Amino acid sequence: MRAVQLTAPGEHGLVERPGPAAGAGEVLLSMRAASVNFRDYMVAGGKYPGISFPLVPLSDGVGVVEAIGAGVTLFKPGDRVCPIFTPRWLSGPSPASVRLPSLGGEIDGVLSEKLVIHELAGIAVPPHLTDAEAATLPCAGVTAWSAVVAYGQVKPGDTVLIEGTGGVALFALQFAKLAGARVALISSSDEKLERARALGADITLNYASTPAWGAAIAALTGGIDLVVETVGAATLAQAVSALRKGGRVAQIGLLSGVGAALPLQSFIPRAINMQGILVGSRDDFANMARAIMQHQLKPVIGQSFEMADLKSALAGMAPGAGHFGKITLKI
Amino acid sequence: MRAVQLTAPGEHGLVERPGPAAGAGEVLLSMRAASVNFRDYMVAGGKYPGISFPLVPLSDGVGVVEAIGAGVTLFKPGDRVCPIFTPRWLSGPSPASVRLPSLGGEIDGVLSEKLVIHELAGIAVPPHLTDAEAATLPCAGVTAWSAVVAYGQVKPGDTVLIEGTGGVALFALQFAKLAGARVALISSSDEKLERARALGADITLNYASTPAWGAAIAALTGGIDLVVETVGAATLAQAVSALRKGGRVAQIGLLSGVGAALPLQSFIPRAINMQGILVGSRDDFANMARAIMQHQLKPVIGQSFEMADLKSALAGMAPGAGHFGKITLKI
Amino acid sequence: MRAVQLTAPGEHGLVERPGPAAGAGEVLLSMRAASVNFRDYMVAGGKYPGISFPLVPLSDGVGVVEAIGAGVTLFKPGDRVCPIFTPRWLSGPSPASVRLPSLGGEIDGVLSEKLVIHELAGIAVPPHLTDAEAATLPCAGVTAWSAVVAYGQVKPGDTVLIEGTGGVALFALQFAKLAGARVALISSSDEKLERARALGADITLNYASTPAWGAAIAALTGGIDLVVETVGAATLAQAVSALRKGGRVAQIGLLSGVGAALPLQSFIPRAINMQGILVGSRDDFANMARAIMQHQLKPVIGQSFEMADLKSALAGMAPGAGHFGKITLKI
Amino acid sequence: MRAVQLTAPGEHGLVERPGPAAGAGEVLLSMRAASVNFRDYMVAGGKYPGISFPLVPLSDGVGVVEAIGAGVTLFKPGDRVCPIFTPRWLSGPSPASVRLPSLGGEIDGVLSEKLVIHELAGIAVPPHLTDAEAATLPCAGVTAWSAVVAYGQVKPGDTVLIEGTGGVALFALQFAKLAGARVALISSSDEKLERARALGADITLNYASTPAWGAAIAALTGGIDLVVETVGAATLAQAVSALRKGGRVAQIGLLSGVGAALPLQSFIPRAINMQGILVGSRDDFANMARAIMQHQLKPVIGQSFEMADLKSALAGMAPGAGHFGKITLKI
Repeated sequence: MRAVQLTAPGEHGLVERPGPAAGAGEVLLSMRAASVNFRDYMVAGGKYPGISFPLVPLSDGVGVVEAIGAGVTLFKPGDRVCPIFTPRWLSGPSPASVRLPSLGGEIDGVLSEKLVIHELAGIAVPPHLTDAEAATLPCAGVTAWSAVVAYGQVKPGDTVLIEGTGGVALFALQFAKLAGARVALISSSDEKLERARALGADITLNYASTPAWGAAIAALTGGIDLVVETVGAATLAQAVSALRKGGRVAQIGLLSGVGAALPLQSFIPRAINMQGILVGSRDDFANMARAIMQHQLKPVIGQSFEMADLKSALAGMAPGAGHFGKITLKI
Repeated sequence: MRAVQLTAPGEHGLVERPGPAAGAGEVLLSMRAASVNFRDYMVAGGKYPGISFPLVPLSDGVGVVEAIGAGVTLFKPGDRVCPIFTPRWLSGPSPASVRLPSLGGEIDGVLSEKLVIHELAGIAVPPHLTDAEAATLPCAGVTAWSAVVAYGQVKPGDTVLIEGTGGVALFALQFAKLAGARVALISSSDEKLERARALGADITLNYASTPAWGAAIAALTGGIDLVVETVGAATLAQAVSALRKGGRVAQIGLLSGVGAALPLQSFIPRAINMQGILVGSRDDFANMARAIMQHQLKPVIGQSFEMADLKSALAGMAPGAGHFGKITLKI
Repeated sequence: MRAVQLTAPGEHGLVERPGPAAGAGEVLLSMRAASVNFRDYMVAGGKYPGISFPLVPLSDGVGVVEAIGAGVTLFKPGDRVCPIFTPRWLSGPSPASVRLPSLGGEIDGVLSEKLVIHELAGIAVPPHLTDAEAATLPCAGVTAWSAVVAYGQVKPGDTVLIEGTGGVALFALQFAKLAGARVALISSSDEKLERARALGADITLNYASTPAWGAAIAALTGGIDLVVETVGAATLAQAVSALRKGGRVAQIGLLSGVGAALPLQSFIPRAINMQGILVGSRDDFANMARAIMQHQLKPVIGQSFEMADLKSALAGMAPGAGHFGKITLKI
Repeated sequence: MRAVQLTAPGEHGLVERPGPAAGAGEVLLSMRAASVNFRDYMVAGGKYPGISFPLVPLSDGVGVVEAIGAGVTLFKPGDRVCPIFTPRWLSGPSPASVRLPSLGGEIDGVLSEKLVIHELAGIAVPPHLTDAEAATLPCAGVTAWSAVVAYGQVKPGDTVLIEGTGGVALFALQFAKLAGARVALISSSDEKLERARALGADITLNYASTPAWGAAIAALTGGIDLVVETVGAATLAQAVSALRKGGRVAQIGLLSGVGAALPLQSFIPRAINMQGILVGSRDDFANMARAIMQHQLKPVIGQSFEMADLKSALAGMAPGAGHFGKITLKI
């Protein structure tokens, strides 16, 4: 079977490997599609901590069960399955007592024709999704779900602030709407704001033309309940200023730098809570898949490439590349 | 001004009282409408702990601000306002360190032409609601909100089980749908099940024709995430058997008796959580009002009576009376 | 190697089995000691759901690492290790999306000379504990920790009610004292009450001489914050009546029957919360081990038997057998 | 009666006022002692938002009940009572739906011979405390309790990091020890570190001689569970670097500036949570008072002044003044 392998920062290629087999409790997947995240851009550039080359990249993908090992009860051949981001993280917060490896980071990822996973490390795919759509769920979808639902506990009547139109941002927009919330979304492109409104965004603002967008969003909305902070250092201070008392910050982004200025004088008296979000557990994924199926929700796909053209897919993740929705790969 | 006064168990009448005035921080309301709850039925029957006669009954009502006292900033004359159930309970769980009186229980209620409340003890009414609709919010609406949202943390994809078609049950149905959940509802009347489906119930079951309805609901849904337990002793055991692992019970009801049999052998290994629900705080009410306004939600009104006809309104709350939605009074 | 095997309800014997080897990520333990729980009594009697014979019994034990498989980093030969109760449950609530097997229940347990576990399924033992003491931690210790700390969130100044002097009860007593709480404990034996006071119990009551012990405990303490409900149907109603407003019930016990009468009229208005407790996660165990080490806490051992004398050990778990602390086995 | 009044930034004086009387539900306190916080230093300097002069300063004090109004049941003449910081905040998080005034901020404070409060706005003082000790509880004590207990949920075996030896810091040290935690404390003074060890600090570090104290604390402790961040911009980045995975930041301090640099690259992957802390509710105070009484805990008093010498007391709160424990005033 063939796989893509990162060999050094900025370098990768196709390799031929022996086909793996499913051991006890495991399933063998014939992979169909994958998608890229900003983390993959950093990994490929050699800028992600804890990785070593060679490495099969990417955490997000979907495959079809080709064979099952002894004792497997959750899946049968022919099922479509997404591997979960951190194979042993099943529920609750990320275990504090041990370090667990994640796909395409400390261990090989999904950009491979075949993949073996433990049956507990996979989730059945809602039937209405295409392979490309399903391939966006494990990291991007679950991260947005963790931010909006598991951490944010967004409820009907809340207002959620979304930054930009990347993959996590648009999932967050969709999940917030399912939960009965109102969505405010900022972008530097009026055209993208229009597309966001078509997806359900209630209030949109071009931050390029309104540099003090934090105060503007607070004025437009009466104060934000949850900000899905997908950008990083460039946005945190304004995002905090847009919050209402008791508001929350789901902190996800490192796109714009790592040293964020936090305005304590507005953070403390308004009793803000901020949480670092790093994807989520098997339970989070299962809950999200259930919601996606029930509401027949469709992830937003931006561009698609062939497996061998990882370079183009990653280029779309570069800061400023300005994608709308997810970038996927066909395997 | 006139008010209705309970004078002894089962007895009440109209009385003439001096009109109250708004002190510092207070507002004077000209009451427009009220509604009844099962608690009012018990209070009027002398079966509620901690009350003494004479007492102006009912907790749920709405009025128009007629005058404001010194220092009032939250309201102005002409505003429509609902008094909150427990005037000093502003946020979080009910204070553990002190006992607080509630309207129509330890202190006089709302069935009166005039009422003075502290400005912090009132919530502005969403404009799209009629007076009768607004008068259903303080106890019935907030109890359902506490069960489904504040305690239940219902999220998209969850399944919520509702018992019957009383006021709290139908609010719970509506709030669960706003939150993106699927709703299963049981009743002994096929006609009411049909009306519930029109309100959004996804799965309905006639418990009269399916006595083992707990197992039937579990089979139909794959397991319930939250049951809004509005009945009491007659339903708890079956409700618990309908839950999935990690499921929750919002325990509200005393309609069918107080000594409930709890099946520990299914409660413990499935890690069920159960919470006694007693209405909610000012913040809960404010959050609910915000959601109702944003979604233009309309409470379900069953019957309406004149203020003097409290007897008929209370009769509708008797166990087995079989109302659908809220019973209101015009003041 | 030898192991004890249950062969039918009430029957067991020693069997000779081939010695297992540690695969990748696994460790081979040479077992030193085990202990029994009420669950083991039910399993051996064929009264526990989801089990099948033959089965190696018991969940709680300790061993010394004899060999490690490829890639193991958490342990080295010579380390003392306790297997965790549910090998794949690492953190948070028990996963809702999958069923996980537990030692001595759905899968073979620890009453065996050798045992292979994944390295993530073991916890290093605090050095100050004897083997017998360490062997009490995985189910009994972690259950008490989950009840008092993870669920109960006991804080300084709280009062915790403990029922009896079994293994979980005495761990709960010790953990509550570490957390700065006051402990009330009931027993039918004045001699056991005296021993409980020596372990730190602040308030003790003989329930045999005070049948209405719930009200008596409420009067003595001003109301209980958390009851560690280890008994079952016979105690729940009185335990609830001892709680203060906002109090909590950690529901663990099935010793006295499964159909508990729950007094809704005191449960609801006091906003009681009740949670089914089924042991805990790897993180819970790791947190408990850290606390035990820091405070040099010693588990309470009642009796000890030889591995082959499982019968005597289990007899001590029969309802009414009246043990004080844990019953252990030497392997 | 006499009171101290702030008249302009940096200016204050004694004034004679008519003695107040207790209305319905209120109690009249004859004040005995007060204490100062950094907030009072900012208020007196005119640097606190939302205040206007003239203003009676200080939030923290204690008095003896001189008279009670109609309907008062919680107190009787002669009781010693502390007013609570935010008189109407009874439980849970600070209400999000309304702004509530606090003593010595938006409304007059306690530096007055007589004070009238609603009975719900007072807490009975543990008898073993002196007046000066009791006067430190309402803001400094409750803030530390909120950080360590209500938010931090510190449990046995946790390690808590305390910054400096101010009033909140030493309360946090004492509460963390009551809760069974290990305490690490930093200061720039070896003499203060020695005094902190005498109060129970387990690990101490002079940050003046170890500028990279965050990493040093992480190495000494294995990672911090909760940091009580009482300083502000100067410490946050290092405090975050001392945390273990899943660690928490109770953000309290503005002493060293308001624009803190937050290192997102360590905040996100370790799933850190940060919460702005602004004192606490009546329930928090009641729970704290219960713990203080049960453990006979004594607050740490640094210096004491006469009521008229507010200037000296405030001078002790200036950044860098280097007090140890609380500064109190006799009334």
